Amino acid sequence: MLVHDITHYLSSQKQKIEQVLPLYIDHLQAPSILKDAMNYSLEAGGKRIRPLLLLSTLKAFNKEEEMGLPVACAIEMIHTYSLIHDDLPSMDNDNLRRGKPTNHIIFGEANAILAGDGLLTYSFQLIADMNEELVPPSTKLKLITELAKAAGAEGMVGGQVADIEGEGQALTLPELEYIHKHKTGKLLAYSIMAGGIMANASAEKLEMLESFALHLGLAFQIRDDILDIEGSEEAIGKPVGSDATNHKNTYPSLLTMSGAKAKLEYHIDQAMTTIKEIGIESEILEYLCQLVGSRQN
Amino acid sequence: MLVHDITHYLSSQKQKIEQVLPLYIDHLQAPSILKDAMNYSLEAGGKRIRPLLLLSTLKAFNKEEEMGLPVACAIEMIHTYSLIHDDLPSMDNDNLRRGKPTNHIIFGEANAILAGDGLLTYSFQLIADMNEELVPPSTKLKLITELAKAAGAEGMVGGQVADIEGEGQALTLPELEYIHKHKTGKLLAYSIMAGGIMANASAEKLEMLESFALHLGLAFQIRDDILDIEGSEEAIGKPVGSDATNHKNTYPSLLTMSGAKAKLEYHIDQAMTTIKEIGIESEILEYLCQLVGSRQN
Repeated sequence: MLVHDITHYLSSQKQKIEQVLPLYIDHLQAPSILKDAMNYSLEAGGKRIRPLLLLSTLKAFNKEEEMGLPVACAIEMIHTYSLIHDDLPSMDNDNLRRGKPTNHIIFGEANAILAGDGLLTYSFQLIADMNEELVPPSTKLKLITELAKAAGAEGMVGGQVADIEGEGQALTLPELEYIHKHKTGKLLAYSIMAGGIMANASAEKLEMLESFALHLGLAFQIRDDILDIEGSEEAIGKPVGSDATNHKNTYPSLLTMSGAKAKLEYHIDQAMTTIKEIGIESEILEYLCQLVGSRQN
Repeated sequence: MLVHDITHYLSSQKQKIEQVLPLYIDHLQAPSILKDAMNYSLEAGGKRIRPLLLLSTLKAFNKEEEMGLPVACAIEMIHTYSLIHDDLPSMDNDNLRRGKPTNHIIFGEANAILAGDGLLTYSFQLIADMNEELVPPSTKLKLITELAKAAGAEGMVGGQVADIEGEGQALTLPELEYIHKHKTGKLLAYSIMAGGIMANASAEKLEMLESFALHLGLAFQIRDDILDIEGSEEAIGKPVGSDATNHKNTYPSLLTMSGAKAKLEYHIDQAMTTIKEIGIESEILEYLCQLVGSRQN
């Protein structure tokens, strides 16, 4: 596949996800302010990297991406709920995200919390309700179990708690990796694993997908930390150097900038080696992996 | 069954639920402060009316209650998460619940939000992971779909948003009923429906169970409103008259006290008539229904 074809493929899939997401919300019989609050953050954009990873994994296994759309949307809803709750005054207290006022600034704190709760709850319904001719019941249940693990106390929620616990403390590298593996890594990994699960991948291939995904997740986070120092304010949508201002533990602060860059390269290399070994049509996943390592926002 | 046997049955089931709940949390690999926060509110007690309704419904269909324990715990986790989030400063701003400091008072606001998120997420995992020999995949999926509807934007979360919207406004009776049907009714109804779903009840019986449950739910709320005026501070665990102080819309404020009592009686009667018509061994459900109408706390 030519790079041009890959980028065209990804932008058309992104468009599809962004068309479907608000339809799911419109469909709800709920107070309109709640639906508005849920939609506001879902529509705020972003790279949609998680749903794209899921759909690209399905494609790598020669499966119809269509079957994965509800899971892709469920993952994006969980990611979005986590951003809404993270931005709250009692957490990161952010007034802006991607250049727009955060959810609680527009809808108030109570509605923002409840919009997050609603998105989280709905995500499980989307998976349970999938077309049974495309996804059999046992597969749906595996998708639900793994999503709950990736998003809950053993995954993203646990990572967020560890992140708060670590604030203002000098962390070791393993402590920092624990936080990122859980706070962002597990849901990113799930996006890829879910594709493998739907494609009935063997246990061995699922394990390799997971290894690919965890390296990709850490690379994603390290690139984030680097961009906070070397990126352009316009591209990243927040002030450069905010991690240092907030005394955040980052890869550059623990390893120096060149150490962080070496670590980034290591994880990208590991991810690339693993994905090539699986024996699937992994071109788009490889492209996304390279993109994660070099992205400017 | 003698009343003595019924109360003995209920207290032994309550004990079982309270034994199992913390085991589910202990089992999690997560930061200990998160597990402590999740357990703190789960262990804070309460009537456990939802899990008891579920187990009693299974018993009415002559099914082993054992099979329902994970769903019973899942429902209690969702109820508990909703209390944690409701008590937050940006919602009801309550410092005490059942005589104990609320979750955010002990663990801080961020951890309280995350403990709630963790409980909500985990509840779906408990159902997806149930023993397949007792509960087949298609039943689990139905349980998950209905739980998401009862707890999410179309249910509890929607009711909570409507409640916040209605604050300080004079509501009509239909508006007040919308709030209660959603904020407390749907999850209470789910507790009963879930028993019917697991017992493979016919569509007709499920519909009658739902009607029973919705009347019970409204009765539960009306009794709450009455107790806030006529109850004893010691028994209800909060100051008498707090609804009036907070200018809350209640059944007595809309219908007068005698109107509210007539409405309570109406819903209890409707519930009792319906449950007796289903043709199941409904003695314990009838007892719980009477209890809801006459409870002192």
